[in-house]
Amino acid sequence: MDAQTTEFDFCATVSPADRAARADRQLAALAAREAAVHAFVRHDAAAARQHAADGPLAGALIGVKDIIATEAFPTRYGIDTTEEVGVRHDAWCVARVRQLGATILGKTVCTAFAYPKPGPTTNPHDARRTPGGSSSGSAAAVAAGFVSFALGTQTAGSTIRPASYCGVVGFKPTFGLLPTEGIQPIATTLDHVGVFANSPRDAWYLTSAMMGPRPQIAAPRRPRRLLQLRLPAELPQHDAYPQRMDALAAALRDEDITVDECDLPFPVADFRTLQQELCYWEAARILMVPGTVRLAPELLALLGPYRDRDEAAYAATRRRRETYQAQFDPLACQYDAILMPSATGAAPPVANTGDAVMNRFWTALHVPTLNVPFWRNDEGLPLGLQLIGPLGADRALVEVAQWFHLRHDRAR
Amino acid sequence: MDAQTTEFDFCATVSPADRAARADRQLAALAAREAAVHAFVRHDAAAARQHAADGPLAGALIGVKDIIATEAFPTRYGIDTTEEVGVRHDAWCVARVRQLGATILGKTVCTAFAYPKPGPTTNPHDARRTPGGSSSGSAAAVAAGFVSFALGTQTAGSTIRPASYCGVVGFKPTFGLLPTEGIQPIATTLDHVGVFANSPRDAWYLTSAMMGPRPQIAAPRRPRRLLQLRLPAELPQHDAYPQRMDALAAALRDEDITVDECDLPFPVADFRTLQQELCYWEAARILMVPGTVRLAPELLALLGPYRDRDEAAYAATRRRRETYQAQFDPLACQYDAILMPSATGAAPPVANTGDAVMNRFWTALHVPTLNVPFWRNDEGLPLGLQLIGPLGADRALVEVAQWFHLRHDRAR
Repeated sequence: MDAQTTEFDFCATVSPADRAARADRQLAALAAREAAVHAFVRHDAAAARQHAADGPLAGALIGVKDIIATEAFPTRYGIDTTEEVGVRHDAWCVARVRQLGATILGKTVCTAFAYPKPGPTTNPHDARRTPGGSSSGSAAAVAAGFVSFALGTQTAGSTIRPASYCGVVGFKPTFGLLPTEGIQPIATTLDHVGVFANSPRDAWYLTSAMMGPRPQIAAPRRPRRLLQLRLPAELPQHDAYPQRMDALAAALRDEDITVDECDLPFPVADFRTLQQELCYWEAARILMVPGTVRLAPELLALLGPYRDRDEAAYAATRRRRETYQAQFDPLACQYDAILMPSATGAAPPVANTGDAVMNRFWTALHVPTLNVPFWRNDEGLPLGLQLIGPLGADRALVEVAQWFHLRHDRAR
Repeated sequence: MDAQTTEFDFCATVSPADRAARADRQLAALAAREAAVHAFVRHDAAAARQHAADGPLAGALIGVKDIIATEAFPTRYGIDTTEEVGVRHDAWCVARVRQLGATILGKTVCTAFAYPKPGPTTNPHDARRTPGGSSSGSAAAVAAGFVSFALGTQTAGSTIRPASYCGVVGFKPTFGLLPTEGIQPIATTLDHVGVFANSPRDAWYLTSAMMGPRPQIAAPRRPRRLLQLRLPAELPQHDAYPQRMDALAAALRDEDITVDECDLPFPVADFRTLQQELCYWEAARILMVPGTVRLAPELLALLGPYRDRDEAAYAATRRRRETYQAQFDPLACQYDAILMPSATGAAPPVANTGDAVMNRFWTALHVPTLNVPFWRNDEGLPLGLQLIGPLGADRALVEVAQWFHLRHDRAR
């Protein structure tokens, strides 16, 4: 099964009867495959059959990452516990999609506090592979055809990477476009709501519906100027990613699209670790507090050194980020999108959730990024193309991504 | 009564008996004056008598702005309604202060959705004057001696301005230091938690306690280099603010402290309106959605034009902000603090909550700002000194502010 054809698009189906029929197919897929995929922490298929009658998201089944609070289901932040650690109310994003007629099918698996220790979810394309993390279940639920949309988060690479591994569209909007109210904070200057869907158009439909005032259909837009980032050798690239990127650039140039190339315009050390320095310092203050939930030993070991780190080091990192943000903007504004791999390769075995190094820096820069499933490796596993845009130019980026998405569809 | 002497400092009192005695004095002040001040939407003095026995905030009475969710009290966002519009759980900041032993005395008045339409609170220094907004009751509760601390928010100038009008310390930390989880979002890239206290040291004690791992006592630090911002004539300055700033600079120079002066290094149009452009665009998407609470007609009229405004204009404003952030940083890093008025003058009459023009731009820039009550106008009303620092250098700024606070105390 491959969810990446336009027939799976939520936007493409407007009649209530067709939407209800699709929801039925999704629940049938859930019944058939959830035991193997394990996308959900808990779900309620019976309740999900009671769709709303109207609203722009009527008939849409949605999975919600278990770090996002819901009224209907307890929230446990991916912690292996029987106690209910979160509160029972709808986070802002959950309240919005419900107001618009969507149905929350259930809570999707996330790794504990979004730390990259694997959860039970498997990759729908190969059960021996990770779906990626930390929005593991959200990506897998869309990939397995259980839901039309899933809500996740991205603090490092937790939307784009699992979307790439699972072969679905992942969209991390500009920081601040979607409020994170009701989501367990991890790192306040990095936490983003992320969206999983079957097309860039669908991802924008859901995002713009939440943002208001009304959902927008993003038309595909042929790019005129693109920038391909050449990555230094320190950044691992498997599954012939560089060759695939070069071949794509050549093919685009044959279609009279300008594709410039440039070396990564940031120090590679900061590209690798700037986000982590911010994240661990902020997370140590938010998560390592007495009286809250027990953290996994691995997470305590990771955050511990940052707990007493001087604020001056943190402040210097914040200021480097500001400089990079201001530098990146004029570059990004010259192009319809910046292109690079969404991950270091296809989904690795389940022992770990993979490497977010292709995503972390963009999360820190707050710019919009999008994964379009674009290739398959020799074993048939998905490989994603990452599109990056200037701050706030989310819709324009989605339009270009939709063009890539349809182009890819036609090529198959 | 004047809360601005060190004897009111929470940090100065460490014995449980003394802390209990102070809480008793605060509850007596509440009983005597709350009918006139009207700082609280609702409070529970009886419950507040059951202090926690230990913890760094044991014995601290705290007021919480009614836009911040609490388990013990309903949240109504300052809306004039009998229905409970918010949820019953403790926002992140409330959960933290309670873990640390603090007692929530009640919910303080805020203007509806933080819009500057006045609420019922009066200024403790003159009942015919506004306490400022939107954290009206939080500032007034500290000024009237009802609580040691109050939690507020700042999206434009809602912490620094009311602190200046009410003659208390107000502190807006660097964006992201304190998570806004559980606070009604207004504008996601601008919403900050703000803190009201009786000294900069107390404000940092509370802030650092919330941030973890443990509360810090900020020692006063004598500044060596300061920058006085000269403001253009378009920005209103009443109550001889420019003359007071000049006299302060001269006095500091007499003490061998370098005080440079420079004109506002940003276009005055953006200084005035950049924050509003971001705020209204974001707020129109968050607040003007069907199915949520009814907004006041004034607020609808303000946000309406932004509801359908193209994202390109918003994106351009976001990018201008990035440029200003990167420009401001090297300037701010040369100084121990940047000095300017906290407001355009003393508290105006109750008909409006005053002008946030001295605060908005710094909120948009995400940098730490602090109000130190510093002068009194001819009618005896407080006038505040605003200190601004580079991103993330919060503790260093508080230390300098504490020096100004003690210097001012000595001068009286």
